[in-house]
Amino acid sequence: MPYDSTSFEQYMSQQHDRFVAEFAQFIAVPSVAAQNRSITTMADLVANRLRQLGAAVTVYQTPGSPVVYAELGPRNAARTLMIYNHYDVQPEDPAELWTSEPFTLTIKDGRMVGRGTSADKGELLSRIQAVEAWLKTQGELPVRIKWVVEGEEEVGSVHLGEWVLAHADMLRADGILWEGGGYDEEGRMTFGLGGKGLAEFELHCQGPNHDLHSSVAPLVVNPAWRLVWALSTLKDQDDNITLDGYVEHVRPLTDEEWARIDAVPMPFEAMRHRWGITGWLQGLDDHAARRRYLGAPTITICGIHSGYGGLGSKTVLPAEASCKLDFRLVDGLTSDLAERLLREHLDKRGFADITITALGHEEFAASAPGSLAERAAVAASERVWGKTPVILPWYAGSGPVHQLSTVLDIPVVFAGATWHPDIRAHSPNENIFVKDYFESMRFTAAFLELFATLDA
Amino acid sequence: MPYDSTSFEQYMSQQHDRFVAEFAQFIAVPSVAAQNRSITTMADLVANRLRQLGAAVTVYQTPGSPVVYAELGPRNAARTLMIYNHYDVQPEDPAELWTSEPFTLTIKDGRMVGRGTSADKGELLSRIQAVEAWLKTQGELPVRIKWVVEGEEEVGSVHLGEWVLAHADMLRADGILWEGGGYDEEGRMTFGLGGKGLAEFELHCQGPNHDLHSSVAPLVVNPAWRLVWALSTLKDQDDNITLDGYVEHVRPLTDEEWARIDAVPMPFEAMRHRWGITGWLQGLDDHAARRRYLGAPTITICGIHSGYGGLGSKTVLPAEASCKLDFRLVDGLTSDLAERLLREHLDKRGFADITITALGHEEFAASAPGSLAERAAVAASERVWGKTPVILPWYAGSGPVHQLSTVLDIPVVFAGATWHPDIRAHSPNENIFVKDYFESMRFTAAFLELFATLDA
Repeated sequence: MPYDSTSFEQYMSQQHDRFVAEFAQFIAVPSVAAQNRSITTMADLVANRLRQLGAAVTVYQTPGSPVVYAELGPRNAARTLMIYNHYDVQPEDPAELWTSEPFTLTIKDGRMVGRGTSADKGELLSRIQAVEAWLKTQGELPVRIKWVVEGEEEVGSVHLGEWVLAHADMLRADGILWEGGGYDEEGRMTFGLGGKGLAEFELHCQGPNHDLHSSVAPLVVNPAWRLVWALSTLKDQDDNITLDGYVEHVRPLTDEEWARIDAVPMPFEAMRHRWGITGWLQGLDDHAARRRYLGAPTITICGIHSGYGGLGSKTVLPAEASCKLDFRLVDGLTSDLAERLLREHLDKRGFADITITALGHEEFAASAPGSLAERAAVAASERVWGKTPVILPWYAGSGPVHQLSTVLDIPVVFAGATWHPDIRAHSPNENIFVKDYFESMRFTAAFLELFATLDA
Repeated sequence: MPYDSTSFEQYMSQQHDRFVAEFAQFIAVPSVAAQNRSITTMADLVANRLRQLGAAVTVYQTPGSPVVYAELGPRNAARTLMIYNHYDVQPEDPAELWTSEPFTLTIKDGRMVGRGTSADKGELLSRIQAVEAWLKTQGELPVRIKWVVEGEEEVGSVHLGEWVLAHADMLRADGILWEGGGYDEEGRMTFGLGGKGLAEFELHCQGPNHDLHSSVAPLVVNPAWRLVWALSTLKDQDDNITLDGYVEHVRPLTDEEWARIDAVPMPFEAMRHRWGITGWLQGLDDHAARRRYLGAPTITICGIHSGYGGLGSKTVLPAEASCKLDFRLVDGLTSDLAERLLREHLDKRGFADITITALGHEEFAASAPGSLAERAAVAASERVWGKTPVILPWYAGSGPVHQLSTVLDIPVVFAGATWHPDIRAHSPNENIFVKDYFESMRFTAAFLELFATLDA
């Protein structure tokens, strides 16, 4: 029996301004995990908001950010849904490129702009508010909900895996509603069943004990040069990974998997236009690009810094050089393998002095097609928008899916509703549309009902 | 007839505190040419200080920093000495490594610490004060002085050459007293007859129009990778320059020149200790290191910057990447050659998209041994310190020597007195000793007299 959408809609309308004001409160907390800023403040804010739903909430301390865990809904419900979100955000750098304050929710032309609007506070709070609306208008929830809201997603969910292992019994569920998901340039809803893995490293090379006048360059080892030389051995100029013994571990995809990838519509022309580029790397055509996007591992320089970077020139030989790398992992690759091979590769080439610090990691994970969670997401999309969503076998992005879905053996679906083609997640002027924030509530309500009622 | 050193010393003593206070005023002006900070303020301060000597001073405007030009001393003097100094300084970055305010003269343990103390405000002002002391205690100067104080030395003296060409007649002189020079770990005075050239470039690679989520790395060209690949083709991992067609232009040194280089004492052990390193690049022994130091060209990464550099990680594909390079030029190489070959080299390897901006340049220049200026410097050193100085055929560093000495055909000597082995020029905590600041005045007085009186 469908829930009563009329009263639900009415409640959303009545509470519109309060819901937006609450969202502004969430955005105002600069919960940057990479810099350990305002993390406990944000965890407490989330915990208190969940308690307002009547949930039993525990804030679990970890060596890093706390995990906020909430249970609500009938204990005797036939099905249990895990919901995954995170309350941490990316740094706001480069701060000067924002057109409004990064941590002030700014509404303009129907968009809500601010760090964390799309990743992941918009989904988190709109789902919480959807549950509130359900409770206020429909009564009891149709499922038991186990809500995991972590605070280290943007730094590789460093401590989540250990927490999951310690609470595996508590976390049993029939499906996981993940973060992420939305619509593309042509309005197609896009959901997914997993994500690539991610291994993040910082490389550091130390030279002299202070910046020297560059006239000593004939004598003194320059750490910036050493880092450049070391990096240049990891990928060739055509962007092929040349890390020793690495790509051999990639599991070849099956024809069925390639077919699922080939079926993913991607708005390539719009993507190029939006990013201001004229073509893909290696001159790939769109068909090959789609396969590489989902099927290929990456090694990305996310940042490299050494010496003087201000206006004009400064004739120094830098004291040190650092670089942040991320590896996106497809099936067959693991973060441990990446770290071990990277160390061996550098050592073998005379770069033993370059240190590697692991910053965070996630493993490749993808659920098999056909799960209850996936079917509930598809049916909810059809009901709310009249659209059958595209289902990606896995996203090119990453999340701690392995740590919850694979380890606990619970099928997952990435089925958020707030992502649009220009959300600028992780970039300046991150945003979502106001209308999608409220669509997310409608979708959540439909998903809860369908997850409770579809055939197993 | 030697000047009366007793009255000169007395005057220095009497004026000690005022002289130091004036120096503090000079240091307090953050005349960073690279950032066009306080340049006109500093030019005016220098001009006014020279006017207090009774000099005829003109501040020449250029498209960049003004050139302060002063003439003083008898018009009918038998000899004319040009003095070269500069009033601009390097940026204070990394500012957090200073133990005192960069632009506040701070005296501690006999050292005067502040940006510009050694390069070049200490030499400049102590010479001005030496002339004042001469005029107050000895009467008329023994030579005509033409003083060139420019404001773009730290950015490659971009506009000095054009100014020199426009005023070549005005600038005739019998010798040039340059900036730079001092003593090493073992107390040896060290002067020089020129310097390597310098060509400074900024390389820039543009990627997408904003930082993207790194999940798109299989598709989108990463400008940080492109810059790394391009740079890695310029020098091999053993620090040998591999820029196409470049080192072939180096003029082989004569046996006599190698002998002069081999005769330069260098405190290698102390240098390594001071810089916190255990050996030289390529495992060079000290003999080979000395030859490479003065005889080899360089390509130095002075800075490289792209993407995220803060704490922790940020999974972005950067929108752009930049790098500052400096080339130290030995005889046979020119800045034009470096720029042309760099462009060709990058184009040939598929890096036509990487832009090159020339930031400043100076050409290799060295005077032949035996000039009046050199002999006056040697004799002044012997008189003031009882020490015969080491004469370098040229420094490993650079200055606009070519633009004045070569173009005008006037022999030059680098003969400052304030440099000690730990001045940290261009680095945090740049400093000179108070005692050397006043030694510089003694040396200047002796030099003026000897330049006027030695056999031609």
